[in-house]
Amino acid sequence: MRVLAKDIKDYAGKEVTVQGWIHRIRDLGGVNFIVFRDRSGRIQLVTNDELDVTLESVVSVTGTVQANEKAPGGYEIQMSNMDVLAPAAADLPFPVNQDPEKIGLETILDNRAISLRNPKILSIFRLQADIMRYFGEYLRAQDFTEIKSTKLVGGATEGGTNLFRVEYFDTSVCLAQSPQVYKQTMVSSGLERVFEISHAYRAEKHETSRHINEYVSMDVEMGFIEDEMELIELERGAMKYIFTKIKENNQRELDDWGATVPDPELCDKIPVISHEQCKKIVSERVGKRFFEINPEAEVVISEWAMEEYGIDLVFINEFPRKKRPFYTYPKGLKTMSFDLVFRGLEITTGGRRINEYRMFQEALPKFGLTEEELGAYASIFKYGCPPHGGFAIGLERLTQKILGLNNVKEASLFPRDRKRITP
Amino acid sequence: MRVLAKDIKDYAGKEVTVQGWIHRIRDLGGVNFIVFRDRSGRIQLVTNDELDVTLESVVSVTGTVQANEKAPGGYEIQMSNMDVLAPAAADLPFPVNQDPEKIGLETILDNRAISLRNPKILSIFRLQADIMRYFGEYLRAQDFTEIKSTKLVGGATEGGTNLFRVEYFDTSVCLAQSPQVYKQTMVSSGLERVFEISHAYRAEKHETSRHINEYVSMDVEMGFIEDEMELIELERGAMKYIFTKIKENNQRELDDWGATVPDPELCDKIPVISHEQCKKIVSERVGKRFFEINPEAEVVISEWAMEEYGIDLVFINEFPRKKRPFYTYPKGLKTMSFDLVFRGLEITTGGRRINEYRMFQEALPKFGLTEEELGAYASIFKYGCPPHGGFAIGLERLTQKILGLNNVKEASLFPRDRKRITP
Repeated sequence: MRVLAKDIKDYAGKEVTVQGWIHRIRDLGGVNFIVFRDRSGRIQLVTNDELDVTLESVVSVTGTVQANEKAPGGYEIQMSNMDVLAPAAADLPFPVNQDPEKIGLETILDNRAISLRNPKILSIFRLQADIMRYFGEYLRAQDFTEIKSTKLVGGATEGGTNLFRVEYFDTSVCLAQSPQVYKQTMVSSGLERVFEISHAYRAEKHETSRHINEYVSMDVEMGFIEDEMELIELERGAMKYIFTKIKENNQRELDDWGATVPDPELCDKIPVISHEQCKKIVSERVGKRFFEINPEAEVVISEWAMEEYGIDLVFINEFPRKKRPFYTYPKGLKTMSFDLVFRGLEITTGGRRINEYRMFQEALPKFGLTEEELGAYASIFKYGCPPHGGFAIGLERLTQKILGLNNVKEASLFPRDRKRITP
Repeated sequence: MRVLAKDIKDYAGKEVTVQGWIHRIRDLGGVNFIVFRDRSGRIQLVTNDELDVTLESVVSVTGTVQANEKAPGGYEIQMSNMDVLAPAAADLPFPVNQDPEKIGLETILDNRAISLRNPKILSIFRLQADIMRYFGEYLRAQDFTEIKSTKLVGGATEGGTNLFRVEYFDTSVCLAQSPQVYKQTMVSSGLERVFEISHAYRAEKHETSRHINEYVSMDVEMGFIEDEMELIELERGAMKYIFTKIKENNQRELDDWGATVPDPELCDKIPVISHEQCKKIVSERVGKRFFEINPEAEVVISEWAMEEYGIDLVFINEFPRKKRPFYTYPKGLKTMSFDLVFRGLEITTGGRRINEYRMFQEALPKFGLTEEELGAYASIFKYGCPPHGGFAIGLERLTQKILGLNNVKEASLFPRDRKRITP
């Protein structure tokens, strides 16, 4: 029976079998110390025998558990037998057991199958899995239903640029930039409250530390709201829940990166400022006039929130109409929309959507659209759609900012950018 | 404060506000009875006033809750005020409140935004959301980690036909047929046990009741197994858990479709028969020789399992090598692979994968592949990959079979087939 590394302390004095990877070998004058790794953690194996095994080989080891206060975790295994289940070639592209800071991002991504074995790198994705889980838990508790909507969009519903085209039998379709149309359909269907965690695609040519061309979008849409403030309160609650659960369960991953999450209690204090106020605050702090909230402004406003409220998150609402898509609910020349900036990076865009059919019809020509082009999307509004709105959180950006990663690509298992289509 | 339909019984004698849709109106000689619908269910509203509202309009209604044993649920609301939040046009393509059996599949799918409002149709997707949740709960309890892998595959990793091509900047990539390569990478990374619930794409030209070109694949991959029997036991447990939870929580959805789930306790008895045995049993029952397990054979073997074991699920293992992909672990001329057939339909394919580098290298030429073509995929095996395997469950097929739907497209929110790319 296989025992996990984390559990050997329960088997002191007993013989156990562990299965995993050879992480490190130290030969101390006739005694070999092996750092052994499985999904649960790392332990020390000890043997006086000569070793004929390469780093990263997969082994099945039998031996006796003994207490040793010098061993990590206080216990080690005195080996009696080692079977090599799968030997690793000796020409590893880089040592798995070193600090990934020394490797360089391109090498890490080129050799993803190897770099993911580094415990520090792998911890990014352990945390990411839990972020998805917490997000779902929070929303289900608020009566949200999970959906899976198509990513193959025909017709003109997804207007604009930055679309990837797919050859689809005798025609072509686009990869969905977001589940916007579909989550609105599902609010209108009567589910009222829906969420989706799926891939989204943007054919942006940017090559920056904050862009990837395929990302995981954690989307929310909610019916029977008055304005964007209810969405802001929902997201405030989601962030509070996610940070709380991370503090409870993910200290190991935070420690790997020397990271901390914001104090969940302070989520109640995340300020909400208007787009206009934001530009004013940023302009004053930097000493030059900002006409839009660009990446530099996002950093500055985050610093401001940290100083003023002790938490580096800030909601920005009331974006001007020309900065938002045609379906955004107007409020004079402004809109009922918002962003959430976290540690200097926009991780959310959201807002109330137009739901009245007449307002929808009036908005279209201003954006060069026609009802015919939008087809089924228009029918949502024609047949009675409740007031509603929603938002989306970029999973990789949220992961990046929680752990303090330099580049959003580090938070994508197999990132896709303009040049990278493998592995 | 809005009250949900399901909760009005707690407000007898009190004034409440409900918000939702006008489902049905009956004028009984000066008294109007409205069936009102929100996400929680349906209730009756009563008024003596004349009504000026269309079916499917979204309304906010205030009134007094009163007991009425003739009303569904035992309570109704005597209306004092109705605000129409969003009127519905009077030309609904078909009545939302009728039995969808009368509408026809093409009309249902052409008008998805409207047909999803039908409570019976919507219940398909309420159940589907819960199936995803139960699947994740079961696997997390077994120490599986959720992953999100790319759906844009460059290089030759995804060989063969049935691929959709995507124009990707100056080159092209394929939409992933499955997360196979990536889930194997993540086992090998040290997560050991992973699952993913994401879209998968097959450019099959079939036009059948069991095919869609975009589907949701519930994928599992698990390290340190001996053979496919451990995977079969894992899936047996997953099915048992899903059926148990559905019985606990989803009676409403089952009732809508007159459906039942198999007795969870009988999941322990799901038979495991070999591909050879299966052909023999089917040939004997039908009275003609079957050379493969085709859709007809799947129906027959399901009937056999129901008669012999009281449950219409059956695992079929030991498929011949030529019927399985190159990465399937051999067992003589057979393989360590299996299918799961549920109510006459294959809902799972799985098996142990080749993990030894040398065996991997030897298998490639037999399938016309080279290590160079497979690139990063080969590196998983070169550097020590544990014995492992996995399986995938088609979410739409599982939903279809649980509810007894005629066509798998009914279990896809926005299905894509050769001709259908909208809505």
